[in-house]
Amino acid sequence: MTSPTEPQTAARVPSAVRLPVRPEHAGLEPYGAPQLDVPVLLNVNENPYAPSDEVVATIAAEVAAAARGLNRYPDRDFLDLRADLADFLAVESGVRVPAEQVWAANGSNEVMLHLLQAFGGPGRTALSFAPTYSMYPEYARDTATRWVEGRREDDFTLDADAAVATVREHAPSVILLASPNNPTGTALPPETVAAICEAALEIEVPVPGAEPGCAVVVVDEAYGEFRRAGTPSALELLDRYPNLAVSRTMSKAFALAGARLGYLAASREIVDALRVVRLPYHLSAVTQAVARAALAHSASLLAQVDALRAERDATVDWLRARRYQGRPLEVAASDANFVLFGRFDDRTAIWQGLLDRGVLVRVVGPDGWLRVSIGTPEEMTAFKDALVEVAGL
Amino acid sequence: MTSPTEPQTAARVPSAVRLPVRPEHAGLEPYGAPQLDVPVLLNVNENPYAPSDEVVATIAAEVAAAARGLNRYPDRDFLDLRADLADFLAVESGVRVPAEQVWAANGSNEVMLHLLQAFGGPGRTALSFAPTYSMYPEYARDTATRWVEGRREDDFTLDADAAVATVREHAPSVILLASPNNPTGTALPPETVAAICEAALEIEVPVPGAEPGCAVVVVDEAYGEFRRAGTPSALELLDRYPNLAVSRTMSKAFALAGARLGYLAASREIVDALRVVRLPYHLSAVTQAVARAALAHSASLLAQVDALRAERDATVDWLRARRYQGRPLEVAASDANFVLFGRFDDRTAIWQGLLDRGVLVRVVGPDGWLRVSIGTPEEMTAFKDALVEVAGL
Repeated sequence: MTSPTEPQTAARVPSAVRLPVRPEHAGLEPYGAPQLDVPVLLNVNENPYAPSDEVVATIAAEVAAAARGLNRYPDRDFLDLRADLADFLAVESGVRVPAEQVWAANGSNEVMLHLLQAFGGPGRTALSFAPTYSMYPEYARDTATRWVEGRREDDFTLDADAAVATVREHAPSVILLASPNNPTGTALPPETVAAICEAALEIEVPVPGAEPGCAVVVVDEAYGEFRRAGTPSALELLDRYPNLAVSRTMSKAFALAGARLGYLAASREIVDALRVVRLPYHLSAVTQAVARAALAHSASLLAQVDALRAERDATVDWLRARRYQGRPLEVAASDANFVLFGRFDDRTAIWQGLLDRGVLVRVVGPDGWLRVSIGTPEEMTAFKDALVEVAGL
Repeated sequence: MTSPTEPQTAARVPSAVRLPVRPEHAGLEPYGAPQLDVPVLLNVNENPYAPSDEVVATIAAEVAAAARGLNRYPDRDFLDLRADLADFLAVESGVRVPAEQVWAANGSNEVMLHLLQAFGGPGRTALSFAPTYSMYPEYARDTATRWVEGRREDDFTLDADAAVATVREHAPSVILLASPNNPTGTALPPETVAAICEAALEIEVPVPGAEPGCAVVVVDEAYGEFRRAGTPSALELLDRYPNLAVSRTMSKAFALAGARLGYLAASREIVDALRVVRLPYHLSAVTQAVARAALAHSASLLAQVDALRAERDATVDWLRARRYQGRPLEVAASDANFVLFGRFDDRTAIWQGLLDRGVLVRVVGPDGWLRVSIGTPEEMTAFKDALVEVAGL
């Protein structure tokens, strides 16, 4: 399954050789938004602020130091990096966990793959609530885990009772909850997460030769640092739920998408299960050095988060004040660094019109909606000017 | 399955929570050789020669350049790196493939995972010939692929007729052939690889909704650059077999184990199937920069390969001239940067004795054998001196 809204093309027809391509991959193109070279890139929720000269210098120095020993394999357990990540979480959220309760991999993608490899797999089910991140069904597919989608409400929130009923109905072994959700920006209140964790503890996943297991709840906080004041992180629930994992990434708030560092905090039992399925030496010495260099500058790298949140709130307000074909634009409340807005009769035409004006946004989410990432003030002005022209707002 | 020869300890007993750990992971410790801090590390086939100052400087400069854009996602298709890898293969082996026929990932580990995800999986079988690399069954386990092992001959070579019969018997969708083989050092002659590729083309792997597929043959040349003069690479067979993939790594000859860069060359059809299963942005901008910086210095980095081969041959000769408890030591012929030797009644005692003298080798391979990586001349002297003492040679 690729994102349902990316253009699909037919599979290549093998000429002479009939490779044993798995049937679930037949006709698929690789996942990913178009990588186009246009002036205003607002399509993949990147942070528009490049690392400062100071951060670049630290990264270069730390990588040079690591490079002198690159003939050796990296530290397989990377406890220094895990300690730095734990320190950052304590500062950001007020929740302190020991380094042994932190795990990391090459992007949240790989963190999620480890979770599905450990707790999903053949004969098991992973559950999320749509509309949500379009990679989730790919993680399930990649691990031969059955994929089930419950539904969010019309305003993209989650009704706790309905969600618990869906959990009980499908008895998944893994429940994926994005908060803030992608592509809608919706954060989950801790009470909802807690209710789902409670229900998950009651699930009985058959484990041949052992007692049944409970379900593991993964709260994907890739955009967590952008949440609005008063929105708590699910990290605060960690000490109550040993079946809860909260994942984060350095790709967004840390402005380090190119470095590929995702991580999570969870019970020691969960982290130990992930250590069994990780490929040995999965995190290079260079990746470890880059991440630690960036974490040493977290205050500087995160300085732009407040500005991006303000720009996000201003973008939501601006869009909400616009009318399209006689009715107000619909704009999802956002705790992330992007905004979902619509609905357009022909969203692809709007997307193309913006692209023609040098502004790349994303066709994603329910029919009629578009998602715009929050860029610099200049980029948002370009976006708004182009949208007024294209949609006749 | 972890390496059968690593010490196993019991699984942690979860206190309150019953996580849905998969039954095949129950009681497993994470894979990997002990990472011990001793003077002479000859246990994981690393290259003992650290990158030169010049290489370190290029890496630092290229990473600094990449760091300026780390807020953006990396090039998902990394064709520049793939072109550089293709250029290197052409120089090293005389076989030129276009960049589109090269694939790369975070270590050969991840390359293999992609291959098993694309062509293995539930209901399918992966086959190799033991004794061989102990990660292979882990790749199979991680992708829910059935794992079958044929046997090598007593001298660790592969009998082509017997291998073809084993292929026909088990009808695998993926055949993994390490050449030079780990932990034995044995290279496969191209006629044997060709015979297996031919047999693999005749296999009929059921593909629901489509014609049956053939089997894919993966020749793992992680140690390929160390092969002896006159030993051809399986790359020479690529134009004849669209079902053949030849994998390499920058961890060994390139002395870049810490950078985690594995790659392969194969038909366009195979590479296209891998692109569907890779996680998007799996290769960081930093990893791409480091690998390209190293490839720009490939002559310098590979300069030590000839010295390591000579040291390897000298080590084989020295071991073959020794007697243990009245009989000559057995020493496997080696085309790699390590040597398998034995047999000892109590190899763990020998291993411990060497470790007590500051020399770490590996307990791996059939019972009674030990594997020593080729280090610097000084390190090999330390190994030989210690072995004489410990084993009374």
